[in-house]
Amino acid sequence: MIKAINIYSERMVSEFHRILFTRGFTENKALQCAQIFTNNSVDGVYSHGVNRFATFIKMVDGGYVKPNNTPSLKSKQGGIEQWDGNLGAGPLNAMHATDTAIDLSRQYGIGCMALSNTNHWMRGGAYGWHAAKKGFIFIGWTNTIANMPAWGAIDNKLGNNPFVLAVPYKEEAIVLDMAMSQYSVGKMELAKMKDEKLSMQGGYNTSGQLTNDPAEIIASRRLMPIGYWKGAGLSLLLDVLATILSGGLSTFEISKSKIETAISQVFIAIDISKLQNYSSIPQMINNIINDYHQSATDDEMKKIIYPGERVLKIRKENLAQGIPVLKNIWDEILHL
Amino acid sequence: MIKAINIYSERMVSEFHRILFTRGFTENKALQCAQIFTNNSVDGVYSHGVNRFATFIKMVDGGYVKPNNTPSLKSKQGGIEQWDGNLGAGPLNAMHATDTAIDLSRQYGIGCMALSNTNHWMRGGAYGWHAAKKGFIFIGWTNTIANMPAWGAIDNKLGNNPFVLAVPYKEEAIVLDMAMSQYSVGKMELAKMKDEKLSMQGGYNTSGQLTNDPAEIIASRRLMPIGYWKGAGLSLLLDVLATILSGGLSTFEISKSKIETAISQVFIAIDISKLQNYSSIPQMINNIINDYHQSATDDEMKKIIYPGERVLKIRKENLAQGIPVLKNIWDEILHL
Repeated sequence: MIKAINIYSERMVSEFHRILFTRGFTENKALQCAQIFTNNSVDGVYSHGVNRFATFIKMVDGGYVKPNNTPSLKSKQGGIEQWDGNLGAGPLNAMHATDTAIDLSRQYGIGCMALSNTNHWMRGGAYGWHAAKKGFIFIGWTNTIANMPAWGAIDNKLGNNPFVLAVPYKEEAIVLDMAMSQYSVGKMELAKMKDEKLSMQGGYNTSGQLTNDPAEIIASRRLMPIGYWKGAGLSLLLDVLATILSGGLSTFEISKSKIETAISQVFIAIDISKLQNYSSIPQMINNIINDYHQSATDDEMKKIIYPGERVLKIRKENLAQGIPVLKNIWDEILHL
Repeated sequence: MIKAINIYSERMVSEFHRILFTRGFTENKALQCAQIFTNNSVDGVYSHGVNRFATFIKMVDGGYVKPNNTPSLKSKQGGIEQWDGNLGAGPLNAMHATDTAIDLSRQYGIGCMALSNTNHWMRGGAYGWHAAKKGFIFIGWTNTIANMPAWGAIDNKLGNNPFVLAVPYKEEAIVLDMAMSQYSVGKMELAKMKDEKLSMQGGYNTSGQLTNDPAEIIASRRLMPIGYWKGAGLSLLLDVLATILSGGLSTFEISKSKIETAISQVFIAIDISKLQNYSSIPQMINNIINDYHQSATDDEMKKIIYPGERVLKIRKENLAQGIPVLKNIWDEILHL
């Protein structure tokens, strides 16, 4: 078993900041990027935080991520704008896009920024939390390199194209951040390492049968779409929409390279502050969540939680006690 | 086995039109409503077309659906408008909302009409096809009465809240119309009637185990959300968004009545005609679909199709040969 250590968030930000600065990020950009990676880790999404940081730096060192490139406006039509991400850092581009969509929604009620030629945004939920905590509804998605088969197929033509929905709730947010594959490769690799099975079927073995054995699915590379044909269809549509709205590359074109870069994303924000029922929105959501929490279960100890609810607890713990990191991962970061 | 007969679409429109007119729909409204129910049937979605028509008339006769009520504007903020459906006919209200969202998108690039106090829209895909064939991207969803448990729960607190995405493609459209339960109750009842199993697990038996036996799932009333916890989370978020955007009722509130009425819906349209890359959009989608169609399968005869592709074939057949209807269902309609 590999030893885990706890790193306080301030320490993590400062280490990431140092490394990003050495890679040519400006002081401000290095800080913002360090904070996004750290926040993802504080929220328990290690796979798209501290555990992914070294890979991100490799993308910078390889020239795929351009440290100081920022998005540039390609076209504007009222509440919808198309921007070129100019291969800037995915998290910085995505945060910029979220803020742009928010500004558009302030002006037009609903705003959309479509972003081509960008890089992996790491954790999609980060932009949902950001927008919702500012008081806006957020709808966003990204395409990815092909990593999932169409329903009934054996080769990977679809991305797992994460889709994010977020809404303000009690000074915090309800945030759904959902990839189109039932499990991420990262989650399956972790289960494999721990010699655990998945809680549900997550893909196919090499004989074409559904299995919950992560090692078999990793070997076959046949991830299961959520809801079988439904998630496969949703993945296809999200890719089509991201591609045409941004004027960028589709999963098909991204996948011509072995390295995932120059991807396409969509960010939609809705300004709820001018809705007729604005003042009653907190109560409306409360009523829904209270009822949802009263769901009956066959096990009294089992608590039904909403998307993002678990994050609040993990965040509190990680802020108080430090972020758990495998020692070998932290050591690698210290040497970057 | 119950005998099926074929009814030509003109005949079906005229029969539906006659019946709706006797229920107090104006000439125009009766015709439009008859056409939507018939088109759904032509496209093979019988469960939300001819097979549902008698139930719709019962809703009219029961006073739940008000034949000549139309939506009224509650508030406007740029590209987003809130309307009250005034309990008008669901399909007519939804078509009105789709056209309003389209008009808003013509003006603002992206437009959203949120609709409270409406009735079942029947087939959500109808509005996706309608918008996409006019050249617009469509994103829409509805909430429903509670008919699905939260993940891990045994009682129904969530709706199956269908979600629709559509995009113009080759004079036609790619249309995803996807409820949050893996199978609809209608589909399971049909399988049960034919004494067939579901192709995949679709819910729980009364002992709390996943099963593909439709009779067992209908008995337990525990439908399986697509992607397990993911579809449950998406259902919750779609309900929250529909409720607060429309200022209408949530699944929780709708479910206080045994009859599903006064539901909430969201219609978003995007005008792609002014995008910088407008002229290359057909080729962009072609490239994606061509690649998708080349998916490898383990059975040469198996063809990978995109959402909505099967509809084109069924539509052609049903227009040429008439719409297959069970004789007892058609007889019931003739007596309405």
